[in-house]
Amino acid sequence: MVTDNPTNVTAMAVPEQMQASVLSGIQELRVEPVSTPSVASDEVLVRVAAVGVCGSDTHYFRHGRIGDFVVEAPLILGHEVSGRIVAVGSDVSPARIGERVAVEPQKNCRRCRECRAGRYNLCRRMEFYATPPIDGAFAQYCVIRTEFAHTLPDPISDEAAALLEPLSVAITTMRKAGVAPGSSILIAGAGPIGIICAQTARAFGAADIIVTDLAAQRRDRALTYGATRVIDPRDVDVASADLDVHAFVDASGSPEAVFDGIKAVRPAGTAVLVGLGASEMTLPIEHIQNLEITVTGIFRYADTWPAAIHLVASGQVDLDSLVTGRFDLEHAGDALNADLDPAGLKAVVYPN
Amino acid sequence: MVTDNPTNVTAMAVPEQMQASVLSGIQELRVEPVSTPSVASDEVLVRVAAVGVCGSDTHYFRHGRIGDFVVEAPLILGHEVSGRIVAVGSDVSPARIGERVAVEPQKNCRRCRECRAGRYNLCRRMEFYATPPIDGAFAQYCVIRTEFAHTLPDPISDEAAALLEPLSVAITTMRKAGVAPGSSILIAGAGPIGIICAQTARAFGAADIIVTDLAAQRRDRALTYGATRVIDPRDVDVASADLDVHAFVDASGSPEAVFDGIKAVRPAGTAVLVGLGASEMTLPIEHIQNLEITVTGIFRYADTWPAAIHLVASGQVDLDSLVTGRFDLEHAGDALNADLDPAGLKAVVYPN
Amino acid sequence: MVTDNPTNVTAMAVPEQMQASVLSGIQELRVEPVSTPSVASDEVLVRVAAVGVCGSDTHYFRHGRIGDFVVEAPLILGHEVSGRIVAVGSDVSPARIGERVAVEPQKNCRRCRECRAGRYNLCRRMEFYATPPIDGAFAQYCVIRTEFAHTLPDPISDEAAALLEPLSVAITTMRKAGVAPGSSILIAGAGPIGIICAQTARAFGAADIIVTDLAAQRRDRALTYGATRVIDPRDVDVASADLDVHAFVDASGSPEAVFDGIKAVRPAGTAVLVGLGASEMTLPIEHIQNLEITVTGIFRYADTWPAAIHLVASGQVDLDSLVTGRFDLEHAGDALNADLDPAGLKAVVYPN
Amino acid sequence: MVTDNPTNVTAMAVPEQMQASVLSGIQELRVEPVSTPSVASDEVLVRVAAVGVCGSDTHYFRHGRIGDFVVEAPLILGHEVSGRIVAVGSDVSPARIGERVAVEPQKNCRRCRECRAGRYNLCRRMEFYATPPIDGAFAQYCVIRTEFAHTLPDPISDEAAALLEPLSVAITTMRKAGVAPGSSILIAGAGPIGIICAQTARAFGAADIIVTDLAAQRRDRALTYGATRVIDPRDVDVASADLDVHAFVDASGSPEAVFDGIKAVRPAGTAVLVGLGASEMTLPIEHIQNLEITVTGIFRYADTWPAAIHLVASGQVDLDSLVTGRFDLEHAGDALNADLDPAGLKAVVYPN
Repeated sequence: MVTDNPTNVTAMAVPEQMQASVLSGIQELRVEPVSTPSVASDEVLVRVAAVGVCGSDTHYFRHGRIGDFVVEAPLILGHEVSGRIVAVGSDVSPARIGERVAVEPQKNCRRCRECRAGRYNLCRRMEFYATPPIDGAFAQYCVIRTEFAHTLPDPISDEAAALLEPLSVAITTMRKAGVAPGSSILIAGAGPIGIICAQTARAFGAADIIVTDLAAQRRDRALTYGATRVIDPRDVDVASADLDVHAFVDASGSPEAVFDGIKAVRPAGTAVLVGLGASEMTLPIEHIQNLEITVTGIFRYADTWPAAIHLVASGQVDLDSLVTGRFDLEHAGDALNADLDPAGLKAVVYPN
Repeated sequence: MVTDNPTNVTAMAVPEQMQASVLSGIQELRVEPVSTPSVASDEVLVRVAAVGVCGSDTHYFRHGRIGDFVVEAPLILGHEVSGRIVAVGSDVSPARIGERVAVEPQKNCRRCRECRAGRYNLCRRMEFYATPPIDGAFAQYCVIRTEFAHTLPDPISDEAAALLEPLSVAITTMRKAGVAPGSSILIAGAGPIGIICAQTARAFGAADIIVTDLAAQRRDRALTYGATRVIDPRDVDVASADLDVHAFVDASGSPEAVFDGIKAVRPAGTAVLVGLGASEMTLPIEHIQNLEITVTGIFRYADTWPAAIHLVASGQVDLDSLVTGRFDLEHAGDALNADLDPAGLKAVVYPN
Repeated sequence: MVTDNPTNVTAMAVPEQMQASVLSGIQELRVEPVSTPSVASDEVLVRVAAVGVCGSDTHYFRHGRIGDFVVEAPLILGHEVSGRIVAVGSDVSPARIGERVAVEPQKNCRRCRECRAGRYNLCRRMEFYATPPIDGAFAQYCVIRTEFAHTLPDPISDEAAALLEPLSVAITTMRKAGVAPGSSILIAGAGPIGIICAQTARAFGAADIIVTDLAAQRRDRALTYGATRVIDPRDVDVASADLDVHAFVDASGSPEAVFDGIKAVRPAGTAVLVGLGASEMTLPIEHIQNLEITVTGIFRYADTWPAAIHLVASGQVDLDSLVTGRFDLEHAGDALNADLDPAGLKAVVYPN
Repeated sequence: MVTDNPTNVTAMAVPEQMQASVLSGIQELRVEPVSTPSVASDEVLVRVAAVGVCGSDTHYFRHGRIGDFVVEAPLILGHEVSGRIVAVGSDVSPARIGERVAVEPQKNCRRCRECRAGRYNLCRRMEFYATPPIDGAFAQYCVIRTEFAHTLPDPISDEAAALLEPLSVAITTMRKAGVAPGSSILIAGAGPIGIICAQTARAFGAADIIVTDLAAQRRDRALTYGATRVIDPRDVDVASADLDVHAFVDASGSPEAVFDGIKAVRPAGTAVLVGLGASEMTLPIEHIQNLEITVTGIFRYADTWPAAIHLVASGQVDLDSLVTGRFDLEHAGDALNADLDPAGLKAVVYPN
């Protein structure tokens, strides 16, 4: 790589080839050598420390597609990434070499209507890690624009730094939900996103954080991560329980949870649909109209890493304890199947 | 009335009884004498000039209920009202007597959480005209709080003044939709609300106003009221036509129109559901999530009459030409059935 | 009182006369018997527990006026109040009797443009405690509308409950300043309001909280209440130090601090002027224009007590330790002069 | 140019040198040949049609600087530009060649915090036309990024197209001022910006548009461009006249007008300072605080040309009649001095 691009600056030897876990078919994953990515003038090369496993990685692994995105050529998964800068492009200060960073895994076009308006997450020409045909970070190195390699303070571990990505999802959710000191919020689903949302809601000042989940184990866990109350939706009819919350967040993808959760929202409140469950759902339209409820969804994030870093560095959000499995690159497949263990929460891959 | 309440001020003789069109059962409507309403200290008595017929009036007339609101006792319909103040309560300046006014037909509690927050339309203790058990204005007189009797400038006719009420619905819709100079908007349905929304969108500065309707006659009419383009949804697939609008407004109540209309919205755009069609509808959730579209509804209005008066007085919105039928109190039933004529748009009742 | 108004409900004997500390001239304060206030149908009578002393109380005490508000008749000072409900009006549930409450010391007209819009703090007909000619709460009892008697959870002490009033000022400030997780904020002045603002900024998620004050003792204190950095403005030129903060809050009233603080704000940031110092100030207009900075002020509060109660009950804001002096009604004058001790922070009067 | 950059596409002969009016010292302006600008891959080359003269051009011409921006090398003035695309960079569709366009005369860095947030006008690395050391458009050709060359519909003349730039200032102002149907607005100053603001306020729906100016001729002109009332501030004390406007816009740069205008704003209203008059001004702080008025300024614009094009194409804003002087390149100096004629409003230079 270095020889190809003499304008790059590097402080240490970076091999021309690196090891990567490559998905070549459904459930077909193999570690093999691939070219170390080249670095454009405004980019940095990151030696990967830790990579969290996301539900979308697992979905590509098992199904080879998510909606219109189809894996048609070998693909490297993984988009929750931390590491250390080992080389920089010609427009980036060499002083960045050696920095520990969290990667915001997106590359927007910077020019389109959405980018110009500050909604770069909605850029139609986005190149996002681990979304076909863009490679992710189950590999020794990855490349990212310098502004999306976010400098880490020491107290944040490599694992927590990787998990700033799902925390960014939660921050976007809380912003959309308008959560502020004193708010009440209902969260459906106590999986990784639900748990991080509960913590983030608390950090945003929510006074009442109600979490629903079918599994007792998951409900109990939610109580240790910020929930002030948990509900088994088979015991309490969420739709009619008069929860009267400012905001409802769905982190379950369940159409029933979405329907009932919206009915729990107070007048002028908000529902944010984060969980992916069905391309179409039936919603309580009359309730939405009569109470002027706002329903929306989120698609990734824009300008969240600085806030995420603060929430973790200040101890308001705990990401470290969410990691329930650690795997090397050879066992990336096991990491991708770790969600089959109901006691597990978050798997992390260590490519180096 | 006057004798009962010596603190009221009145400039002319107001009879103790008045004629009203009373709904006593499904499609059972009869003009009969009822007590003229008494005036509280902060209220005014209005001699009714014109009353528009709304779809909700027609619905109560035919079905005896709308959702949870059931006509269980004789009810006076009509909530789109103009008239002249003939008496005032003790806390109201007698100088108001004689004023031509448009009535904002609601009486909120002023104290609850919603009222204190400025969302008085969402007050749970709202007493709204022609919503059981609160009487409306198919009668010679009606009573309203002084702040909701909006002074009319001369150029606005009695009929137009009555129709400031549906215009208030349209203004609320445009505010929620974020319509501003240069916006593009898709409106489903070219009935009275759709037509007023098209005009209001133009007044709010919308550059592209696309209206869909199944009926050619209604599409043609939309073109004379602000639409820049009309679509027959049987000819053009709205969902896939890449209309890329900032906002979608449903004024049809059709679940198909709602589904397709939301798919026509651009990233970060808005859908406002005004039409009443079904208590539940199936929405394109994945599209809402991926494009971060905001979906909401409206429930009446707050702080709209001053803007409505300006839009009509300045000629930006034409309400007069929407009136296609005029009826006296004896023929209120015919007015309520006027919607059966596809060429009709808006019926008005003259109680005096 | 009770005999006069048979519609009131009371659970315990309330005397017709009560002891109050009455201001009859500049620095002329005397405890004397006055009529216990009567209770309207939507009000409650509160037996006062604790009353915080505010700078405005001190100002009336020393100068007999604040701007256009002049003490022209005997006045009871004190508007930071907690207590217990001992009687209720006819429209209030008797179940409220016995409740510990914090008083939101305002009575708005509920009808005007500002009230209807949810900005009841800006009501032009506001009757506010301890603002001529409205009495405050340096007395055994006070009266307040039921919706502004906010129920207290047990963990909040009487003193902290009284200080929810200045906390409400801080909450309003943080809302106006747009403080959210990760924000940076500069606060000028480490008096009571500055100290509570620093704590509230932290609770709203601010990452960097810079406090300036001329007094070393006050700067040190700020560090124990949330400040992440303190600055002596004689050592560091705040205007040119490139602090690049999202928001500046003035809690000093110093024109120099305001000028320099605004220059420390980043593009599109906000300055909120809370401190009262001069009716006119010179601002860096070119800087405001070139960076599109928003400058505003606050006037009391609307809808803040629920959030304030949560912040204190959850331990995010500590009000108890701010109290540095306690006085009975006889020594209210000493309480009003307690600000002369630079080591003091907040005085509290106990009328019963 | 073309020979230097083989990746450019051009449809017609573009000379390597062009004529330009170059400012080489205070009031020293000379037409001389300079290199035709080269076109980067994402840019287009525009053959200039019309260029409006702005007060900032005149200021550089007379004083050689504006604040920290100093003319230290020969500079081409002019930033209100229309023309026709004659060449495009390699990343731009050749189909754009021949398009009539209005130029948004800025080139932001696309990467910084402000750009990423959608506030590209606040980019600290902005390269703006006619701001040292960046050349403007008093020349035969100019270059601009493709997304900032806004396609013009036929009805918009070259002159009006150039004046979309000051219209963009007015649109930004109305957005900041929150002007919507029914608003009331006070505008100080009836120069070009004030006149365009009055028209734009009307297009945004303002019901009451009050314009102040010392000159009767200018006040009269304001009445023909949207003002509903004009005031000579020597006759009416704006500060105490209880104008009670939603928004105040200063387009005068006069400290007195700014002070008085802010005092005319209603509670929770807004003041937007557009005029450049003094780097510091004295503001009525107590009034700003007591009424919670928001004061801000604007710095250029972001995302305004589409709305501007609509307002002109639909006839809501008339820019053509504002042009009171036309000059060729040789007489650019006369154009820059045209503001000395009190009857003049807007001068336009035709470089070709």
